Formats: sequence, C-alpha cells, structure tokens
Amino acid sequence: MQELRQDPITGRWVVIAPLRSERPKEFVDQGVPDFEIDVRKCPFCPGNEHMTPPEVYAVRPKDTKPDAPGWLIRVVPNKFPAFSMERFPLRESSLFVKRPAFGYHEVIIHSSDHSKDLASMPTEHLVKLVDVYRRRFIHMSSDTGIKHVHLIMNQGRESGASLEHPHSQIFGLPIIPAGIQDELGGSLWFKESRKDCVFCWMLEEERKARERVFFENEHFLALAPFASRFPFEIWVVPKRHSPGFTTIESGEIEGLAMMLSRVISAYNQKLGRPSHNFFIHSSPCDGRDYSYFHWHVEIFPRMFIMGAFEFGTQIMINPTAPERAVEMLMK
Amino acid sequence: MQELRQDPITGRWVVIAPLRSERPKEFVDQGVPDFEIDVRKCPFCPGNEHMTPPEVYAVRPKDTKPDAPGWLIRVVPNKFPAFSMERFPLRESSLFVKRPAFGYHEVIIHSSDHSKDLASMPTEHLVKLVDVYRRRFIHMSSDTGIKHVHLIMNQGRESGASLEHPHSQIFGLPIIPAGIQDELGGSLWFKESRKDCVFCWMLEEERKARERVFFENEHFLALAPFASRFPFEIWVVPKRHSPGFTTIESGEIEGLAMMLSRVISAYNQKLGRPSHNFFIHSSPCDGRDYSYFHWHVEIFPRMFIMGAFEFGTQIMINPTAPERAVEMLMK
Repeated sequence: MQELRQDPITGRWVVIAPLRSERPKEFVDQGVPDFEIDVRKCPFCPGNEHMTPPEVYAVRPKDTKPDAPGWLIRVVPNKFPAFSMERFPLRESSLFVKRPAFGYHEVIIHSSDHSKDLASMPTEHLVKLVDVYRRRFIHMSSDTGIKHVHLIMNQGRESGASLEHPHSQIFGLPIIPAGIQDELGGSLWFKESRKDCVFCWMLEEERKARERVFFENEHFLALAPFASRFPFEIWVVPKRHSPGFTTIESGEIEGLAMMLSRVISAYNQKLGRPSHNFFIHSSPCDGRDYSYFHWHVEIFPRMFIMGAFEFGTQIMINPTAPERAVEMLMK
Repeated sequence: MQELRQDPITGRWVVIAPLRSERPKEFVDQGVPDFEIDVRKCPFCPGNEHMTPPEVYAVRPKDTKPDAPGWLIRVVPNKFPAFSMERFPLRESSLFVKRPAFGYHEVIIHSSDHSKDLASMPTEHLVKLVDVYRRRFIHMSSDTGIKHVHLIMNQGRESGASLEHPHSQIFGLPIIPAGIQDELGGSLWFKESRKDCVFCWMLEEERKARERVFFENEHFLALAPFASRFPFEIWVVPKRHSPGFTTIESGEIEGLAMMLSRVISAYNQKLGRPSHNFFIHSSPCDGRDYSYFHWHVEIFPRMFIMGAFEFGTQIMINPTAPERAVEMLMK
C-alpha cells in the first residue's frame, strides 16, 4: 500500500504509491496525444458515476440522487489514491523512516461538461466550485490526524493530469510538506525581523512598482512574482491578510473565481491554450499559530521541461522575465 | 542579461535567462517528436565547429587543429548560457534581491557521433569522457568566484535537452544551490549525531539488506535509494569516502564509466530507451570544510510528469517502489 518514506540525507518525504501505476490514462506518459473524447469511458462524465467511488459531497438539485446524474459539481475519493484512510500495519525497519501514507485524497469534478475548462465556465458555476473547495478544505482541516490541506488542479496533457475531464484534487496530509515549510519559515523570519507580513509587504511594493501586476480586483492582486520559477507564473494573493484559505469570505470567493478565470483566459488567448497547474498554499491545520502566514494561489502554464540542472540544483532557469510575461499576457 | 533573483519569501534562487528562449530546438517544447537527424545543422557534429563558441578544451589528436574536425571530445561555452562571465552593472532595486548570474556554463560534447548514447560507447571513450568531467570540474573549482560546480546530462526529448547530439553540461555557480544545501545539512547533522558519514552508513546498510542494490563493482555501488523520488532512480555512490568529485582517482574513473554505461544500458533494455538525466552532487569549492560530505551521481529516466501536487508540496509521488525497480532492471 502507500507509504510515506523519508530520505535519510535530506529529510525529504516521498510517497510510494504502487496503485497509481494502474490509473487509466487518457494521456500517454510522455505528453503524446492519443485520446479522443469518449464520454462513455470517462469516469467523470454523467451516467458513469458508478466508475468512481461513491461521492462524499455534491452540488446537485434536491430531486436528484447521490451517485446519479443531475449534479453540478461532484466530489469523490480518488480511486488510485496517494493517501488513504487505511492504517495498515507497517513492517518495522530499523534503517529508514517510513510510515503509512495516511490521509485524504479526493477529486472535485468541476462540472458535468467534459470539455469546459475554468475559463469557459459561467462565473456563477465557478463561484460554486470555489465554495466547494472551501467546504472540503474545512472538512479535512477538522480531522485531528491531518496537519495540512493541499488543493491542486492539473489541466491538459502536459500538466500531470491522467484524465481530461476538468477536475481538481484535494489532499489531507499527515505532514507539513516542504513546499509549505519553506514559505512558513520565510514568512516567520520576515514577520520577526520586519514586523510585517511578507505577502502584505510584497503586495504593497508590487502595487507601487506596477511592473509585475497582471490584474487587480476588489479582493485580490494577480501578479507575476519577482523570482518567477516558470514562464508566465502568476500568483493570486488576497488583499486581506489571512493565514488560511478556510477563512475566505463570500465576496472573496467571487473575487477568486473571477481571478482564476481571468488568468486562465489570458493563458488560453495569448499562449495557445497551454496545459496548466495551480495549487492553493494555506497555513497548516495542526493547531499551532500561523498568524504570520498569508494564503494564496500559484498558477503556471506548462511551457517548460525541467532538466537535470533544475532537479540537481533546485534552481529553475526561466527564459521569460516576469515583467515581460505580464506585458505579453496583457497586450 | 541573465539575473539571479531571490524569492523574498523562501529565499529560493531563480535564474532569469531571456537569451535561452532563442536556443535552436530539435525537440519541441512539449516532447512531441518533430526532428530528423540532419548533421548539416547539428552544431555539435564534426564540420560544424564554427556553429559553437570556440572550444575551451578538447580530446583530439596532436595533428588536428582547435575548432576543426578530428576531435574525440570537445568542450565549448554554452552559446545560450544561464550563467556567464560578464559582470554587467545591475540596476539597483530596494525591494528585491537580484545579482548578475555570474558563472561558467560549458557544454561537453560526448563524441563526434550524433546518435551514440553513453551506453553504446566503447568503455575507453567513456573513460576519457569522465576524465574530461574531472578536468573541467577542477578548472572551474579553482576560480575563487565560484562556490559550486554542477555537472549534468540531459538525454532525449523528454529530458530537457534542446539538442539531440549527446552532451553534458557543466556549471560553475556563484552560490551553493538548495539541492546541495539540503544534502550538506543532512550529512552534517548525521555526522555530528552519529559520528559517521550518512552515505557510508547507507552503503553499509544497503549492502546488508540487498533489496535495493542494482550493481556493485570494485569502486562503486549503484542502488535505488530508499526514498526514490522517481521510478527507476539510481544513485551511483563511490565506496571510498570523499567529499568532492575532483578527487576521483584513475581506477574510480573507470569504475564510474562502467557504472554509467551499465545503468543506462538497463534503462535502454528494460524500459525502452527512455529519455534520462543525471547529475553529479559534489561538495562546494568555497574553501570551507565539507569533509562530512560524500560525492555521488543521481540518475533517473523521465517516466513521470510532475503535477501541481509535486510542485506545490515538493513531495514526489512515485508509483514504482525502489525494491520493485531494481527487480525489474535486473531481471
């Protein structure tokens, strides 16, 4: 079954999840297109509800039944999970640290439409979707076995998605991942030394500089970060300081829905509908004080291939300066 | 020009290198094959020496001239470098940390043969190549402006390579990259708490367990690391404790050449000639004491696509357990 293993040198965690190699693949591993939309075979299309595990949440009219068509948004456990609630006994190993990959791994099916990406949905549907994000975030955060909730979206053949039907995934994790630890560390350091939130400071500086701001609405700023790792990387940062995504308020839900749509529309229009990813970075839910942190969304199109330099050094080489990226997305 | 930029939150460095977007591409960005071998256009093929910057080192018969055919191995500066020796003046910025991406970025052309990968070369040529690695490593390490030397190899369309003709790249960096810092930190901690080198300890444990050892020769062990991030990841670790690759001795050069060939042959035979990468992790050359570190090579085929989960959490999900990977590579 799934294991969390820790590298004895770096302390880095890895999930060993053999089941995932059995996932159905509409996209072949190496990005070569070989699929045709066949809704009879898509487990996320209406009529195929039996192909997924039973739903744990859905937005659906009152007169429809669970696991039957009629739903607007549907949440199901991942059939090939990286994390699961099973607490299987672990073979003891004196050498190396491993533990069960305990946790949640759910799929949020964006809509019943196989081919509508986030930019082509009506705003009111997108608002409902962001609200489902919030509800599942709160649900997982309330489990005392869970330390961190991570929501991600893979769209398109180069994004890491194995199915085409648009969906997000939400993970309830028993550890605080390195990607969050790094941001927590930096945010705490900044708070202690500068008496300010590093994200609030960044928003202020970026609004003054106006070189990297892509779009602004009442509640959010969308900007290309100063040290962008990827071409056309955009962060959507709430103006109101809050460590956790679970605190998002109704006006902000609308603002975020609008921002996601705006960024992905720009990718579609200026960059030719690239595959893309996003994730929500939110404070851990282990009961500690993370008031110094500031939740946000990081979005990027897959217009790069990582080489050995990037893997070996963890330094990304980005050919598109963020100032140039914003210029190109806005023109 | 190239800039090194530091993320204000995580401290993570990024290279902004606009020139690199002008690289010629035999492989299209997203891994779709569209090339035919056309040696008239390959800048790394004999007869096309004028298409690269002048060579800085070569293995060639005495009766041949620099930048003319006849060479066995040729080293040239990268025409589209991520790092360069130019120290251009930097616009001051009060907000964010950036500095010139000062450094070396050279290409080591493995041989005059456009289509021979490392596994299909005669051993004596491979030994010469590893010796060129060593020489360029020593050359860059002796520059006091350089803190770390990183050697990498990208092979095949999904590896991040932009040209097909087999080549390695060697970087002289003005910073110690995070990928090395993480290993240094863990190695130092292990040394201080357990009075041992974590790599030496690992070699001993793995030789006892015999679950993850792929191959062993006089000077090296090739093993699938316990917390393998990628399917079929293999580390080649020297048995003799030494922090820096520059100390490699002649018997070890032969041993390493043989190991590289062996691992890549197994990839070719068992996995269908996948694109692959490797890098050498060696101690920094900034004059400090890194006697607790242990140089090694990390190799992996590109049989995975990273999704938003991996980017957001920095936790890899690996469907192939290392024990299974070794079994499959050896059978």
